Amino acid sequence: MRAGPSQEEIRRHNLGALLRHVHLGGPTSRAELTSRMGLNRSTIMALTADLTAAGLVREELPRETGRAGRPSLVVRPESARVYVFALDVGVDRLVAARVGLGGTILDRREAVRRRGPFSLEEIVGPLAGFARQMHRKTRPDTVCVGVAAAFSGGVGRADGVIRFGPNMHSVDVPLAEEMARKLALGLPVTVGNDANLAALAEHTRGVGVGCRDLIYLHGDVGIGGGVIVNGQLLGGHAGFGGEVGHMIVNPKGRLCGCGSLGCLEAEAGERAVLEAAGRSGTHQLGRDAVRDVVDAADRGDIVAQAALSRVGDWLGLGVANLVNVFNPEMVIFGGMLREVYLGSAAQVRSRLAVDALPPSRDGLRLRTSALGDDATLVGAAELAFAQVLADPLEVLARAGS
Amino acid sequence: MRAGPSQEEIRRHNLGALLRHVHLGGPTSRAELTSRMGLNRSTIMALTADLTAAGLVREELPRETGRAGRPSLVVRPESARVYVFALDVGVDRLVAARVGLGGTILDRREAVRRRGPFSLEEIVGPLAGFARQMHRKTRPDTVCVGVAAAFSGGVGRADGVIRFGPNMHSVDVPLAEEMARKLALGLPVTVGNDANLAALAEHTRGVGVGCRDLIYLHGDVGIGGGVIVNGQLLGGHAGFGGEVGHMIVNPKGRLCGCGSLGCLEAEAGERAVLEAAGRSGTHQLGRDAVRDVVDAADRGDIVAQAALSRVGDWLGLGVANLVNVFNPEMVIFGGMLREVYLGSAAQVRSRLAVDALPPSRDGLRLRTSALGDDATLVGAAELAFAQVLADPLEVLARAGS
Repeated sequence: MRAGPSQEEIRRHNLGALLRHVHLGGPTSRAELTSRMGLNRSTIMALTADLTAAGLVREELPRETGRAGRPSLVVRPESARVYVFALDVGVDRLVAARVGLGGTILDRREAVRRRGPFSLEEIVGPLAGFARQMHRKTRPDTVCVGVAAAFSGGVGRADGVIRFGPNMHSVDVPLAEEMARKLALGLPVTVGNDANLAALAEHTRGVGVGCRDLIYLHGDVGIGGGVIVNGQLLGGHAGFGGEVGHMIVNPKGRLCGCGSLGCLEAEAGERAVLEAAGRSGTHQLGRDAVRDVVDAADRGDIVAQAALSRVGDWLGLGVANLVNVFNPEMVIFGGMLREVYLGSAAQVRSRLAVDALPPSRDGLRLRTSALGDDATLVGAAELAFAQVLADPLEVLARAGS
Repeated sequence: MRAGPSQEEIRRHNLGALLRHVHLGGPTSRAELTSRMGLNRSTIMALTADLTAAGLVREELPRETGRAGRPSLVVRPESARVYVFALDVGVDRLVAARVGLGGTILDRREAVRRRGPFSLEEIVGPLAGFARQMHRKTRPDTVCVGVAAAFSGGVGRADGVIRFGPNMHSVDVPLAEEMARKLALGLPVTVGNDANLAALAEHTRGVGVGCRDLIYLHGDVGIGGGVIVNGQLLGGHAGFGGEVGHMIVNPKGRLCGCGSLGCLEAEAGERAVLEAAGRSGTHQLGRDAVRDVVDAADRGDIVAQAALSRVGDWLGLGVANLVNVFNPEMVIFGGMLREVYLGSAAQVRSRLAVDALPPSRDGLRLRTSALGDDATLVGAAELAFAQVLADPLEVLARAGS
């Protein structure tokens, strides 16, 4: 149990808080920062001066104020100068983006991935190549302050080693270490679970802004989850928290990739949808295939409707369980679960009405992802920015050296 | 997003932190406080002087140091002078205790409750009577700084109103308000869910000390839960988080009191144990009845063994689900689930081995409650002390006035 912070710690905290303000909220006037942060004007001025000197923000006159008197200067993040690399290792694609402070995607590269077993090189090679291409195009005065990757599987928080994932036949793959070596930017790489990062993204920049307790459900080949508890991402003891896809909802049910029977993923994942709709094997896989089922149901296809009803029933039961356990304010459906939810909302809601405790579901909002397919990438960018927001000057000094 | 604290806020924070140290850790030397809190000696001296003047701690020479030189003064909580009332509204009993700063139970009263529907008066009347009896026995210089109650059901965080509970046929019972009125101590009453408070107790003073992520499962008539996430109690949006007993594990299973089929509570609660053992109806209920089943199984009774095996299987599945969702460091079995777990540990562990993801259960410890039947009461006391630990001088000034 440590006690209160020193003057230097307070300054560092305040610098981070101010930078986070403009990073998440966009250009903000000094007057607004003063009132929102509860600090006096001279402190805000001093903090802004420090951040400006470090090249993290700049101050300028607002375009128009519409008010009389001297306008308050606007503090804006140096989006073009300070950036991170955000990487997304999805089941069907690899994405790399250069994201400026403030969250602007400045540049991006994407490659389609064939599903199936992969080697570490097949991931790291293309992503490092993309990053190098984008890095070459930057001006000399830009500075990269972090790198983070989203991975669709289990990643240890301490070491960025992959412990499990779809189509991953080897275990203990050192993704973070190998990525950092290959990028050779002199920066460590942080790796997070894709659904966790998407949850973080929706919480900070998406449909969940302002919600302190939310659950994000991500449908890919499997079902992943990210849970925000009291404003913080649920990590658990070693970073594997939120694997809601492996909550067993039907113990006599379908075999899951993890070896158990009746996991939420086995009953409401992509394969369950396509098989229930009689579209496995001969048909295509992936999001488009799921969307086809939902479209067919919309057009009155009885088999597709029955499939969505069945899958929606299990999805609803899973959500009800999570609502009882977490009492969240919002549940967000992302990835292919967005389609499934839109095609089975009535079923999901009716399960919730039966199986969630009334006080636990009171006021609950069910929503679809606002950031769509970019949620994981946006989350990876936020993870990459975490260090500079925690200690702006220290990170910048290191990056510039 | 607020910025760093003011000098006054830091002082308040430090006073609370120091008081929490001696409240949880017992008498501590100034030298130890200096090193543990990361503050310098003169700050510790000043803080201790403030807390001593307020009558919250006192300083004394240690009995023996075994070392040469001037011994460091020991700071100890004023356990006999500063106290709270902790109340426990269990299914089978009502308990009231006067608990001194530092966690010492100074006095307690207990009454057996008959199961069945209850009126608010049947709870509030006896508890207020107990509190008055204990209050009359205190010396004039003592001061009560808080009151909190544990209730075996759902309680809204904001208002202390009971929304659901076993044997509760009315809803929206204003327990906190009515209790405060009847006690007439001029203090508000905080009410929390019993399993949540037991989790808090095991986390701060029991088997879970030092664990930042743990799940406490409490068996009573039903099954309740309390979850500690990154050192904080999971409350959820409105305080109903942790209702793990209503996670559905067997959707074609037994009818639960909540109206759903196959909740963990329905499959592994008291009634499930007794019915599986052929002991419902004619036999006694409660903890003793469950213990009889476990004892019988120990002595080789095949029916009792089969019952525990069946119940342990569902309990294991429920725990596996929670392990996948939370990746906790520890799961604690309390109340009658302590007995059930001890009688079915092999079954629970084998379910975990099959149904929990290997990285999520890696390093997991399964434990029984260290505080036993007093866990809820100890948790209620901690809830009652929360205010004075957050702002020692303010609370004391109010209580003394």
